[in-house]
This record gives sequence, C-alpha cells and structure tokens, in this order.
Amino acid sequence: MTSLKRKSLLVLVPLISLALPPALAAAGSEAAEEVIAVLTRQAEDWNRGDLEAFTAVYAEDATLLAPSGVYQGRTEVLARYKKRYPDRAAMGRLSFEILETRASGDASLVTLAAHWKLGYPEDGDREDATGLTLLVLRHGADGWRILQDASM
Amino acid sequence: MTSLKRKSLLVLVPLISLALPPALAAAGSEAAEEVIAVLTRQAEDWNRGDLEAFTAVYAEDATLLAPSGVYQGRTEVLARYKKRYPDRAAMGRLSFEILETRASGDASLVTLAAHWKLGYPEDGDREDATGLTLLVLRHGADGWRILQDASM
Repeated sequence: MTSLKRKSLLVLVPLISLALPPALAAAGSEAAEEVIAVLTRQAEDWNRGDLEAFTAVYAEDATLLAPSGVYQGRTEVLARYKKRYPDRAAMGRLSFEILETRASGDASLVTLAAHWKLGYPEDGDREDATGLTLLVLRHGADGWRILQDASM
Repeated sequence: MTSLKRKSLLVLVPLISLALPPALAAAGSEAAEEVIAVLTRQAEDWNRGDLEAFTAVYAEDATLLAPSGVYQGRTEVLARYKKRYPDRAAMGRLSFEILETRASGDASLVTLAAHWKLGYPEDGDREDATGLTLLVLRHGADGWRILQDASM
C-alpha cells in the first residue's frame, strides 16, 4: 500500500502543475474582462456628466499621479476632476482604447494601460484631447476598485 | 476519538484564518522591499551611465507609457532612453522618492509610485528635472521585472 500511495503522488504532481497555469490564465482573463467593463461604465458615467459616479470606482485610499501632481484619496481625486472639468462642455465625450492588461497569479490585482480621448463634437473649434493612462485595480468585497492611476 | 478530532478542527479553523492575513501582508511587505531594492540598483546603474543595465530589469514584453508615446518591449524602451539621454551629461544624477507600493494577495505583482529626480550638480545652469512614475513589477524565475511603466 505504501508503495502504491507513493506512485499515485508521483502521477498527481505533474497533473497538478500542468493544470494550474491554464486555470490561472483563465482567472486572469476573466478579471481583465471585468476591469474593462469597469472602464466602459466609467466612460458612460463621464459622458452623462456624473463625476461622482466616475470617481466612485476609485478606492478610498486611491492615488492619482498626473502632470499637475499627486492626488491622495478618492475625495482629492474627485476634487481634481471637478476643478479640471468644471462643466459638461469641458468634459467632452470620453472614450478609451485598451492597450493591454496584466493580472497577478491570483487575479486579485489587474493593471490596464489605455489611450484616452476626449472628443468635443459639439464644439467645432475645440480639438480632441488625448493621452495615456496606467491603472492598477484590486478586487475586494465591493468589486473592482482603482488603487493607482497614472494619467498623462 | 471522532468527537475529539472535530473539536481540534474547530479550534484550527480560526487559527488559520487569523494567521493568513498577516502572512500575506508579510509576503507583500517583503516583495515591496525587494522591488524598492530593484529601483535602488536601477538608480546606481543610471548614475554609472549604464542604460543597458538600467533597462535590463524591464521584461522583454514591457510597456512604457510616456508623454511622447507608447514604447513596446525592452528594446524600444532602451532605444527611447538612449535617444532622450544621449550622454552622461544629459543623464544627470537620478534619485527616487518612493510614494507607495501595493501588492497582490499572492505577492506575484507589486506596483510602485514614486517621484523621480534628475539632478545636474556638474552643470550649474541646468535645473533639476522632476516627475512621477508608476511601475508594475512581476516576480518570475529571473526575479523582479518591470512589466509596465507610466512616467511623466
């Protein structure tokens, strides 16, 4: 019996190590889809002019890095957006083009790089604004939250 | 015996659930220290004028987001640094001030926000350059590698 048990273990080990990477990859891929859905909803919130909803997905202790400085916490992040985009006309129409996502092995953290664009279809004189963003999102009891945002 | 075993299990469960978070936190904290050590070595490489060593810590498929655009892969990242900092005088003296780190539950991914500074102590006319960076690092067989870098 002892010898049989040892044999079973030897067979099991490669099975487990072969099975793990695709399972983890699937978890990462599912997490990436969820995070992209978060950004899609954010763009919808923005385009309704709702900055409170747009920033609700930031963690309470989120950090935003921008050319104008460092903003600590969701309240500061919201204040920065309100100052920079005081009305619907300034907000324009937001869209994202996702460049890539990366996930931790346990899919608890997903990072996302994207191009962002603000179009001003209702203001013929105003050129589109474009830039880049790198987001770090963590999955918790209340879903995905943005922990860090570097936008330029 | 059966009753005793059940009792032991009931005692064990809270012990395990209490033990897990600090263990994970410790793993994240150790990972954060390792990642900060990576940045310290990078600054040393930079200050020796060795851009190859500085960029060796980027993953082969790393992505760099910068105000000038998107750079895909370690080779492009190195080319961008070589173009922007063609000689020791342009490189100046690099230092980082770490703002914060975040780690995934399994400590396989660590993200780091920092202020960077390029000082030019040998050129009295040249002002320091400063900026912000958000790095995503993954731990693999060859240690920590930068997967994504958003620098402005």
